[in-house]
Amino acid sequence: MSYFPQIEKIQFEGKETRNPFAFRHYNASEVVLGKTMKEHLRFAVAYWHTMTQDGSDPFGTAINERSWFGKSEMETAKNRVEAFFEILEKLGVEYFCFHDVDIAPAGDSLEEFMANLDEITDLIKVKMDETGIKLLWNTANMFSHPRFNNGAGSTNDPEVYAYAAAQVKKGLDISKKLNGQNYVFWGGREGYETLLNTDMKFEQDNIARLFKMVIAYAEKIGHKPQFLIEPKPKEPSKHQYDFDAATTMAFIKTYGLEGDFKLNLEANHATLAGHTFEHELRVAREYGALGSIDANQGDLLLGWDTDEFPTNVLDVTLAMYEILENGGITPGGINFDAKVRRSSFEMEDLLLAHIAGMDTFARGLKAAAKLQTDGFLKEVTADRYEKWRESEIGKAILSDKEDLESLTRYAYEHGDGIQLKSSHIEYVKSRLNDYLV
Amino acid sequence: MSYFPQIEKIQFEGKETRNPFAFRHYNASEVVLGKTMKEHLRFAVAYWHTMTQDGSDPFGTAINERSWFGKSEMETAKNRVEAFFEILEKLGVEYFCFHDVDIAPAGDSLEEFMANLDEITDLIKVKMDETGIKLLWNTANMFSHPRFNNGAGSTNDPEVYAYAAAQVKKGLDISKKLNGQNYVFWGGREGYETLLNTDMKFEQDNIARLFKMVIAYAEKIGHKPQFLIEPKPKEPSKHQYDFDAATTMAFIKTYGLEGDFKLNLEANHATLAGHTFEHELRVAREYGALGSIDANQGDLLLGWDTDEFPTNVLDVTLAMYEILENGGITPGGINFDAKVRRSSFEMEDLLLAHIAGMDTFARGLKAAAKLQTDGFLKEVTADRYEKWRESEIGKAILSDKEDLESLTRYAYEHGDGIQLKSSHIEYVKSRLNDYLV
Amino acid sequence: MSYFPQIEKIQFEGKETRNPFAFRHYNASEVVLGKTMKEHLRFAVAYWHTMTQDGSDPFGTAINERSWFGKSEMETAKNRVEAFFEILEKLGVEYFCFHDVDIAPAGDSLEEFMANLDEITDLIKVKMDETGIKLLWNTANMFSHPRFNNGAGSTNDPEVYAYAAAQVKKGLDISKKLNGQNYVFWGGREGYETLLNTDMKFEQDNIARLFKMVIAYAEKIGHKPQFLIEPKPKEPSKHQYDFDAATTMAFIKTYGLEGDFKLNLEANHATLAGHTFEHELRVAREYGALGSIDANQGDLLLGWDTDEFPTNVLDVTLAMYEILENGGITPGGINFDAKVRRSSFEMEDLLLAHIAGMDTFARGLKAAAKLQTDGFLKEVTADRYEKWRESEIGKAILSDKEDLESLTRYAYEHGDGIQLKSSHIEYVKSRLNDYLV
Amino acid sequence: MSYFPQIEKIQFEGKETRNPFAFRHYNASEVVLGKTMKEHLRFAVAYWHTMTQDGSDPFGTAINERSWFGKSEMETAKNRVEAFFEILEKLGVEYFCFHDVDIAPAGDSLEEFMANLDEITDLIKVKMDETGIKLLWNTANMFSHPRFNNGAGSTNDPEVYAYAAAQVKKGLDISKKLNGQNYVFWGGREGYETLLNTDMKFEQDNIARLFKMVIAYAEKIGHKPQFLIEPKPKEPSKHQYDFDAATTMAFIKTYGLEGDFKLNLEANHATLAGHTFEHELRVAREYGALGSIDANQGDLLLGWDTDEFPTNVLDVTLAMYEILENGGITPGGINFDAKVRRSSFEMEDLLLAHIAGMDTFARGLKAAAKLQTDGFLKEVTADRYEKWRESEIGKAILSDKEDLESLTRYAYEHGDGIQLKSSHIEYVKSRLNDYLV
Repeated sequence: MSYFPQIEKIQFEGKETRNPFAFRHYNASEVVLGKTMKEHLRFAVAYWHTMTQDGSDPFGTAINERSWFGKSEMETAKNRVEAFFEILEKLGVEYFCFHDVDIAPAGDSLEEFMANLDEITDLIKVKMDETGIKLLWNTANMFSHPRFNNGAGSTNDPEVYAYAAAQVKKGLDISKKLNGQNYVFWGGREGYETLLNTDMKFEQDNIARLFKMVIAYAEKIGHKPQFLIEPKPKEPSKHQYDFDAATTMAFIKTYGLEGDFKLNLEANHATLAGHTFEHELRVAREYGALGSIDANQGDLLLGWDTDEFPTNVLDVTLAMYEILENGGITPGGINFDAKVRRSSFEMEDLLLAHIAGMDTFARGLKAAAKLQTDGFLKEVTADRYEKWRESEIGKAILSDKEDLESLTRYAYEHGDGIQLKSSHIEYVKSRLNDYLV
Repeated sequence: MSYFPQIEKIQFEGKETRNPFAFRHYNASEVVLGKTMKEHLRFAVAYWHTMTQDGSDPFGTAINERSWFGKSEMETAKNRVEAFFEILEKLGVEYFCFHDVDIAPAGDSLEEFMANLDEITDLIKVKMDETGIKLLWNTANMFSHPRFNNGAGSTNDPEVYAYAAAQVKKGLDISKKLNGQNYVFWGGREGYETLLNTDMKFEQDNIARLFKMVIAYAEKIGHKPQFLIEPKPKEPSKHQYDFDAATTMAFIKTYGLEGDFKLNLEANHATLAGHTFEHELRVAREYGALGSIDANQGDLLLGWDTDEFPTNVLDVTLAMYEILENGGITPGGINFDAKVRRSSFEMEDLLLAHIAGMDTFARGLKAAAKLQTDGFLKEVTADRYEKWRESEIGKAILSDKEDLESLTRYAYEHGDGIQLKSSHIEYVKSRLNDYLV
Repeated sequence: MSYFPQIEKIQFEGKETRNPFAFRHYNASEVVLGKTMKEHLRFAVAYWHTMTQDGSDPFGTAINERSWFGKSEMETAKNRVEAFFEILEKLGVEYFCFHDVDIAPAGDSLEEFMANLDEITDLIKVKMDETGIKLLWNTANMFSHPRFNNGAGSTNDPEVYAYAAAQVKKGLDISKKLNGQNYVFWGGREGYETLLNTDMKFEQDNIARLFKMVIAYAEKIGHKPQFLIEPKPKEPSKHQYDFDAATTMAFIKTYGLEGDFKLNLEANHATLAGHTFEHELRVAREYGALGSIDANQGDLLLGWDTDEFPTNVLDVTLAMYEILENGGITPGGINFDAKVRRSSFEMEDLLLAHIAGMDTFARGLKAAAKLQTDGFLKEVTADRYEKWRESEIGKAILSDKEDLESLTRYAYEHGDGIQLKSSHIEYVKSRLNDYLV
Repeated sequence: MSYFPQIEKIQFEGKETRNPFAFRHYNASEVVLGKTMKEHLRFAVAYWHTMTQDGSDPFGTAINERSWFGKSEMETAKNRVEAFFEILEKLGVEYFCFHDVDIAPAGDSLEEFMANLDEITDLIKVKMDETGIKLLWNTANMFSHPRFNNGAGSTNDPEVYAYAAAQVKKGLDISKKLNGQNYVFWGGREGYETLLNTDMKFEQDNIARLFKMVIAYAEKIGHKPQFLIEPKPKEPSKHQYDFDAATTMAFIKTYGLEGDFKLNLEANHATLAGHTFEHELRVAREYGALGSIDANQGDLLLGWDTDEFPTNVLDVTLAMYEILENGGITPGGINFDAKVRRSSFEMEDLLLAHIAGMDTFARGLKAAAKLQTDGFLKEVTADRYEKWRESEIGKAILSDKEDLESLTRYAYEHGDGIQLKSSHIEYVKSRLNDYLV
């Protein structure tokens, strides 16, 4: 049975096509910088936004029209697996991501939830084997249920902590079963509503304690995916501990988690924290911690997580440039953590939106590759720092041969005649436009 | 000679006074929690906003009317010292802070600048000895001159780096001469205008390199003030590396500077970074890095550093509560990094504005002390985490006796019947109002 | 039957009480400026946040525990009426507000919905008659259902427009039946997701057309409450037409609606639009259009409508000052458009939160009255504009006796020696603190 | 004498050129939609950012290196005229804009200032006659001098008001002398620092009074340029009265200024007010008030007016689309109210930056023309509103034949079966990318 009987596998048809169900830029097998687009981009579809999101918002009820609703929650869950793999195959996407609650009904008890997860992951495994589609990452939803109102790892209630631990253990078991390449922690409730009643340090200690249990268990079961923390500054909490990449690195360093944890970075979370996406990628890259990305875009004039499908070519080019400079992000990937707008409520919008995102990333990849090949930004940068490489004083400082006193002597002799040079930023930005494709 | 002949030393006259040149709440010798207000608050006046700020803004020219302008820059500089100590004494403030460029003219060469600094600091030393007033901290302005356009420690030009080093060395020499208790680094240009031409890691390595030279030199001269980094997210740069407290802690940890560096936190910088001031204080406190504060307030509807004198009693109460919980901030203090509004251009506004700030902090101190004594917030917090202390599972987790498997077993048995309890936040916030004074 | 059997009618017990279910500041019968607090404040409870809000957020499911759920939607709806009036009576609040969908189930058809509304409003009428409680305003929810995805008055679908018209007609019929004093239009979906597919003028023409039908119908049925438009800049729409007070006044003027429409202003909507609440109140006041207010507070570090119960005494004082200066807001009132935090999910939090809000407004009223009586701000303001009243040139300009040429002559003679005077803003803000109670 | 001897007149060389001093996209004589690019774009260079801006910022002193500094202020002013027209001619720009204070020194008295203006405008007139370059608009700077601290039209001091009137009169005289096509009012200080001491209505009445004097004087001298108000929400003031396009329209309507005043809209002011630029253009267009634009771009992660040269092709395309839909903006134009970054301090950056801006607008024009020609957005829009045109009920409503009762009857019959259709926004946004050039 097909959920999209009227739509064929999406093909690359080039820029001029007027077929909405075709790629205009993404050509999976096209080689860019020695690898196919598909190898570079490692796209993943997100189960939650694609299969379970209902189009509601804080002022509106469910709107999305979906044909996979069955007579029971389990039937719906099974239909979703079918529909999901149909979408993946029609898009030609090879990876996927999910939270535990996305795929299976919670049932009336933890036991029932776990049993449902087993049944559905059996089904998913069959589909994976049939199709060759792989699990980029899974995670446990420890923020939606009322019990996580005050957090999971950071909860004020040790019974909730135990419950979270059970979900995480199951998440790792599933990761092993499905050979997940990464495992993500997003702490939507790991933060506070008000500092007035919060012991922040106690809560962060407990989060780290949970993460150490995770490492131990992964080692015990012999399956250790790349662990990833996903920063976000606020929403749903008033303030989340993993505010941004740098804050999360401070946490990782404080608790000695560098070896096992990297970052999963999202464009919209970056901007909510006051950063560009490329900034967050750069921070992670320089810390050796760029793990994976959640591809979407926010609206900088809105103050919440809009999770739009990425269509801004300039922004995506700059993100892809960071990824190329990082040597790719394997075993991470590009997960579309993006949802169709409320007014795009038809099922076919799920495909149209992913096509839009994939085309945008294909453009970004091509532009970034051109930038890297031509070396334009490298030249601009090298030129700016030239004196560090060319001058004696530059080399001496970089060799740690100078101290405040020797530099003071240097400044007395040379400091009054320093010649500055312009960065010509307007020219650089204008030239950059000609790399966009 | 007096610059404020018509104004006497400001006295505490109590809430009912209609004398604008009196404290209504700050009573220096009043004892709160076993210490005088003066001991708790360790107020400092900032040389820049008080003596050299001219009231200009990006759309307006200088407006401030000041009687200390002399016939030469050096005469003005000397007059300023006199006027500054008059202000400090009239306010009864015992500390002060300055940048090198605030106190002495730059002259035509580094050499002349250094000579000017020597002459003025001689004069300052005399005034300090006469009055007992102390140096809270000094710093080098490495952001205003065009040479620092691309940063100082993070500059693209090693000659500029040497120049910065010379200023910092002089800053430390002055700190020794004047027995400075702290020394601050604020990196207004240590960041980037655009990532397109920036090697962020190279720049941060160089900043850390400079800081290590600083430690070495301080040890060599036998004067090691508490070093402080002051975070700010943006402005003047598009993005500054010391974005906020957590980001700066990541930097400090990465480069092994924990032993020597703490944070100087500013209210307005906190809000520009998307945090409350109390959040930044809490972060620093939990990292053991709360060094000193820059007291002011921003306008949350404006996107730039307004550096207003603090008048919001609720906000200041919450800040003072963090400081009391930290056991004070000695050797740091409360520096009014605040400027009079453009329409408060008369000389007497300098006194009125500091009185406003000091009264506000006095109110904040008294309210915070009452909160601490009554234990209201501690009770609310303890109550919220009660189960961690009282339950077997809570104690077992905190003793590191549990792992994912044991917690999973616990959750199977107990997880379906977890009883949550309300935090009654509205009630807590309303009650808090009754602690304000 | 009681839904809050353990809670008595809330009494004023004064500031020192430790009884959470008591007013510490709101004393209904206390006379302030010649009227009782109750007469000044005209509090209303909002049906939606109090009775139907479930505590969910974009990342979390329903959490609120409520005992009024019955075996059918209608039973629940009836229980809610009972519980709601119990809350109103226990709080001593005399007004209430609701959307149509808050009070009655939508059923399977418009007809059924209307029948349900009739049945529930019969019940409400009985309770009103019993208790003397009055309807401040009602409104039609024309944003939650999928059909209003593209707006109601601004919809792209005339059938949806007709549906909206039917809801509004019913809203007016109910208003007549319950003697509503105002009727509100909040256009949460009257705006756009993207300009790319939007004919803004066409949509605004249609909104105005609907409003004119409303006026005509009200006149026809002989019941014309004060019509109010409630501005909000964004959320749920990307951009709403009634962005703020001034924008809405431009709309009202453009379509000739001044005679019949005023504004219902909300604190949190003001800040989302980049304004203080007092700014919005002032704008409306100066346009003679201050109709009613939605009392709540936002979090200026968050970019969405948090609708918190108001607890900030300073902000509420400034709002109450505008209201006093307006001569009150009758027939409008102070409606708590505020919801308990997710962690305040217990039923008693509904009472605690309203007590918090009412106490805060009582403080604000008392402080504003003191400000008005003492004339502090009036003096400050009058002093600032003194020259307009005292000088010949000031009087001449205000009498429209001058023109560019005569003023140029004046400026040539007098313009080079203008004496400015300081506004002493820091002093004013500090003094203001001493008016807070 | 040439100020840019090494730079020839900038030529169009096409996308592939590596000559930084060439247009890659702007080809003045290229015909687009029946007009040359030059006719469409009506570019203007702004005197202030180009000639007098010194590169300082709130934390940095002057940096810009300029060779036109002479031995006296008047000599510098005259050199600037020469250099300015050289820039205009080398860029091939035909319009310019200035404030009075940009072109001539203020001198020691109003009289001297006026005399200086006469002398410089004589010189400018000669250059205009020689080159055929025209004055797009001039204005009076009534915000930089301390006297305007509390506003000009909204000042608290009638003597300042008179001074402003003198400047405006002179501005109109100059406009007549130089045949200015528009005259602009930007009210950077027409707003407030705090409402506590402000009578907003009195101030707005006075602004309107000034505008009426302006109209009268223009009529008297027989030169009536298009008057333009330029909205900006805040900065330098805490809150400016002309917050955005809609707010300004409310003002214009309130004071009956529609016939004589339109809007001058700036991209960066739009985003500071929480709007996209295209939103502001659309608002103005629908009010018939789109007068002229200030072309620049802001940084949406920064909260102040960065006034960057426009390089974002997508944003400029959407702006140009509004302009094309408006039938152009004659007699307005596209004025580069943009300044080079602090690190672009060399003289040649002035040319490079304008080239960047002009190329970006050329791309925007071409893309917008393609969009208009292909009718893509029109189709998308028409399709969305189809039912209004096609259905009986739609036509009836638009003919004002329906009322609440008739629509209620319609809704009872048809309202339960309304079929919605998706807007496919993601597809639309992705397709839009293929129109960019």
